Amino acid sequence: MKGFVFHGPGESSWQDVPDPAVKEPTDAIVQVGVVTICGTDLHILKGDVPEVRPGTVLGHEAVGEIVEVGSDVRTVRPGDRVLVSCITSCGRCRFCRERSYGQCRGGGGWILGHLIDGTQAEYVRVPCTDLSVHPLPGTVRSEDAVLLADIFPTAYEVGVLNGHVRPGDTVAVVGAGPIGLAAIATARLFSPERIIAVDLAPARLEAARRLGADAVADVHEAPRQLVDDLTDGLGADVVIEAVGVPESFELCTRMVRPGGHVANIGVHGKPATLHLEDLWIKDVTITTGLVDTYSTPTLLRMAAAGRLPTGQLVTHIFPLNHMAEAYDVFSGAAETGALKVVLGGEQHEVAVPAA
Amino acid sequence: MKGFVFHGPGESSWQDVPDPAVKEPTDAIVQVGVVTICGTDLHILKGDVPEVRPGTVLGHEAVGEIVEVGSDVRTVRPGDRVLVSCITSCGRCRFCRERSYGQCRGGGGWILGHLIDGTQAEYVRVPCTDLSVHPLPGTVRSEDAVLLADIFPTAYEVGVLNGHVRPGDTVAVVGAGPIGLAAIATARLFSPERIIAVDLAPARLEAARRLGADAVADVHEAPRQLVDDLTDGLGADVVIEAVGVPESFELCTRMVRPGGHVANIGVHGKPATLHLEDLWIKDVTITTGLVDTYSTPTLLRMAAAGRLPTGQLVTHIFPLNHMAEAYDVFSGAAETGALKVVLGGEQHEVAVPAA
Repeated sequence: MKGFVFHGPGESSWQDVPDPAVKEPTDAIVQVGVVTICGTDLHILKGDVPEVRPGTVLGHEAVGEIVEVGSDVRTVRPGDRVLVSCITSCGRCRFCRERSYGQCRGGGGWILGHLIDGTQAEYVRVPCTDLSVHPLPGTVRSEDAVLLADIFPTAYEVGVLNGHVRPGDTVAVVGAGPIGLAAIATARLFSPERIIAVDLAPARLEAARRLGADAVADVHEAPRQLVDDLTDGLGADVVIEAVGVPESFELCTRMVRPGGHVANIGVHGKPATLHLEDLWIKDVTITTGLVDTYSTPTLLRMAAAGRLPTGQLVTHIFPLNHMAEAYDVFSGAAETGALKVVLGGEQHEVAVPAA
Repeated sequence: MKGFVFHGPGESSWQDVPDPAVKEPTDAIVQVGVVTICGTDLHILKGDVPEVRPGTVLGHEAVGEIVEVGSDVRTVRPGDRVLVSCITSCGRCRFCRERSYGQCRGGGGWILGHLIDGTQAEYVRVPCTDLSVHPLPGTVRSEDAVLLADIFPTAYEVGVLNGHVRPGDTVAVVGAGPIGLAAIATARLFSPERIIAVDLAPARLEAARRLGADAVADVHEAPRQLVDDLTDGLGADVVIEAVGVPESFELCTRMVRPGGHVANIGVHGKPATLHLEDLWIKDVTITTGLVDTYSTPTLLRMAAAGRLPTGQLVTHIFPLNHMAEAYDVFSGAAETGALKVVLGGEQHEVAVPAA
């Protein structure tokens, strides 16, 4: 089959790789219908995630059809259309039992396209199938569902839920890329008083307004002042970091009100400065997190009911074998205006039921 | 009257100051019976808390007798023995209504010995009396009760409750001064599996064992390794920072397990480095906070029932007018072995009921 292989920093190709096979009785083989590219994949290509060995097929998000299952798989069977979650979970370890699937110690966690071959290929082997794929209702298009493999649960769990967004809150989202936009969309579910989006790209701020931001600020134009003006100088109740650089994290800690929450979603490669000389007295809660995907079943029901604006995040669709081109468009978002880039889809995919 | 006056960094004296008088109808005047000195007072003397103006009487902890009340005071009257809380609260602002009294915007918060004259004097004016003093049950000695003005609620709320200590947890407490020791004592209330105390003074580690630590580590002797050894390499569920320097905060973030909590109590004068390159994926929650004292009534009931080891924290008792000497003993804890230093007490104090 073909797959998109990481060969070391800056080197990758869509190429022939061996077909995956069932190795454990809990494995399944999924024929990939739709995949997408994550900002984390760009980090890997830059060499920021040293655990990824050269030769690994990338990708941790997919929708596809089950084509083979191991003898212990109970919840799906060949022919089922499934969402492949970015998080694999054994269901048995201490962390899984506390629903911290992202921290799974039983062979799961974030492993696809990280520690084992991933989804940016024609087929993928999924371990721990019963807890790591979600059968898809026929009413959800694969192009929409694939956004529930990672970005929607990540934005919702690590941003909105960890940040404890509540009705009436002022929520600031720093970074209006796909994750930040999904955070804006899911923060709205809690009826905040206002959402303020901060970015440096006018096109992304425009997208933020479409997804539900009430105010937007260029990161270079005193976003903290805007928050202060809107909150009588108090600061935002919840600030969500969706960039992953020290400067944006530090901006978040300056925009939060006393007693407020800073929820970090960004994937960071460097330390940040924590201004404890200001923050020690402010009753601030800072959270970090890898998604656990415990919310995915709920989000799927909401997507089926048309309650999530998944379609608004997809700007480009390519055939699956145009992977290199899709990476170029996605990594060049400043020029291409790309938000989420999807490969596969109705015309390329197997087993799409009629909507 | 006499009071202990801050005259600028490094300068202070026990001297004549004007008697306080009721200014607002919600004020009370308290004749001070017992006071103590807080680590924060030492920070002020060093010049670390620039809001404190020269000429201010220091101190934010006291037990004493109400001698005068304004016309709007309802809950206490002259002759009552009361605990003067380190936090004054208006009870009406947004923050007080959410029980965040430490962040009071109605003229309260931490103001005694900070923004207005404090308790290290023969008399003190207490604003917002109804919510800022606690009538004392006769069964609680003043020398014990004074530890509930600040250190016990601070250790309990900002350390143990913010850190979400739960039964079965491994709790690490970095810093075994009075606040760290009170954190150990109140963490025990939640039946953790073990408490590990970290400090650099053998005498403080010994005190930590007496207060309930199951294991102790010198900060220079690989405390992280000890935690790893005791937790199968996972880290502590809860780490409480009770020092207030960047190195100890950073140590806390290295000792916490995935999904764990770091609760900062320390008063910091400098920024710390937050290693987000390691922490972004670890589901860590970091909290900071000034005490709100919402737990003080509960802690008073526990003290009355003999459930708090307040007496074990007091190493020195002085007459009230030996303030300068008491400061010397407290600030020289490394040599004197001082934990909590109390001034006043049974032989010096007014209105001590029989126990």
